[in-house]
Amino acid sequence: MTNPTAAMLVIGDEILSGRTRDSNMYYLAGELTRIGIRLCEVRVVADEHAAIVAGVNALRGAFDTVFTSGGIGPTHDDITADAIAAAFGVPITYRADAMDLLAKHYERQGLPFNEARQRMARIPDGAQLIENPVSTAPGFTLQNVHVMAGVPSIFQAMLASVLPGLTGGAPLLSQSLRVMRGEGEIAGDFAKLAAEFPELQLGSYPFNTNGVYGTNLVIRGTDAGMLDRAMTRLSAMFA
Amino acid sequence: MTNPTAAMLVIGDEILSGRTRDSNMYYLAGELTRIGIRLCEVRVVADEHAAIVAGVNALRGAFDTVFTSGGIGPTHDDITADAIAAAFGVPITYRADAMDLLAKHYERQGLPFNEARQRMARIPDGAQLIENPVSTAPGFTLQNVHVMAGVPSIFQAMLASVLPGLTGGAPLLSQSLRVMRGEGEIAGDFAKLAAEFPELQLGSYPFNTNGVYGTNLVIRGTDAGMLDRAMTRLSAMFA
Repeated sequence: MTNPTAAMLVIGDEILSGRTRDSNMYYLAGELTRIGIRLCEVRVVADEHAAIVAGVNALRGAFDTVFTSGGIGPTHDDITADAIAAAFGVPITYRADAMDLLAKHYERQGLPFNEARQRMARIPDGAQLIENPVSTAPGFTLQNVHVMAGVPSIFQAMLASVLPGLTGGAPLLSQSLRVMRGEGEIAGDFAKLAAEFPELQLGSYPFNTNGVYGTNLVIRGTDAGMLDRAMTRLSAMFA
Repeated sequence: MTNPTAAMLVIGDEILSGRTRDSNMYYLAGELTRIGIRLCEVRVVADEHAAIVAGVNALRGAFDTVFTSGGIGPTHDDITADAIAAAFGVPITYRADAMDLLAKHYERQGLPFNEARQRMARIPDGAQLIENPVSTAPGFTLQNVHVMAGVPSIFQAMLASVLPGLTGGAPLLSQSLRVMRGEGEIAGDFAKLAAEFPELQLGSYPFNTNGVYGTNLVIRGTDAGMLDRAMTRLSAMFA
């Protein structure tokens, strides 16, 4: 596949402790698939400087685009912006335009623009801001890394403003067939079909509903005609 | 923290394409926290040999225990066992005890023990089998790496037989306080409290429910008395 590649770095103790079930990874995966960008790897790390720096450096070197979520709020455990600056070896400063956005926001709300809130205007040098229509505090893009909030509604809003600027590929299409047979029964023929269509990905996902075994067979690819031909063969095999 | 550390490698195109929302990571995180093992990192990789080998080698060197999920079924895209053998540089062979388990299982079910099903008896040399009470095909443990199924019910059953053999630490306890103020308002005092209790982790998780802003403040640690003292201080701060 020649589609553009992406990776995600999820930053958050709350995921690793089991307090919160991830939803941003699932959301991003669906959005990227829709526009033909292939999500190749996700890493989840704790709110720790060294772990964030190592994670972002490994991923930004290996994939076209990297998305991060989490750790850009006003509290002491929000250390993502500093870690990204360190990863790129650039200074981080209070940015005038971000200070201005936030000052106006808190003035409108009648809330003090205190030291903690001002921290959210600290942005690595050379970054572009990502708009936050939910709660103003911006994300930012530094080279191929998009740094976004962990709160799902804000993550989704930021992603909506980042995606149109990315070069996608042919959308990844998928078709699936539900068969009431175990994986072990269909595996041989399914592998032969996979070998016939090397440009497609064929995956099988077993299920067990109320004691009944079956398998969802999924074919993915970017060529709609080829997908149809493979699906016709598949249906004939297991009808 | 001196608690034992762990990492997880999730193997599966279905997570990265957005078809399936992860549940094994969430389940494992909760179980490990309960027994005092700290989940430090999770990686999600595609069904690709090189990605699995690189992921498992990075994680098994860095953490005490590694759990993998996915890719141990009978179909052509189930390549985890081979990748684990390659990562450890050991041969992979049809294991007699696994063949025996599976042969009996399919005989009981009146189903052919065909080539695809026999593939599930291929186990890297030196591994111990992990029992699969759901569908028989075993997982395996090789040194500090526990290789388990991706189907959630089987993953959970395998984990239940692995966990009692692990050395846990003091369970990670947590207490939380819901305050109806934004993160930016409580951040200063919250950071001071965090500095007073360096052995505890203090995290804040903002929410917005029907337009009302608030923050869940969470304190985590292994010392119940210390946790109580910090929570008393926190309650006094934001009561």
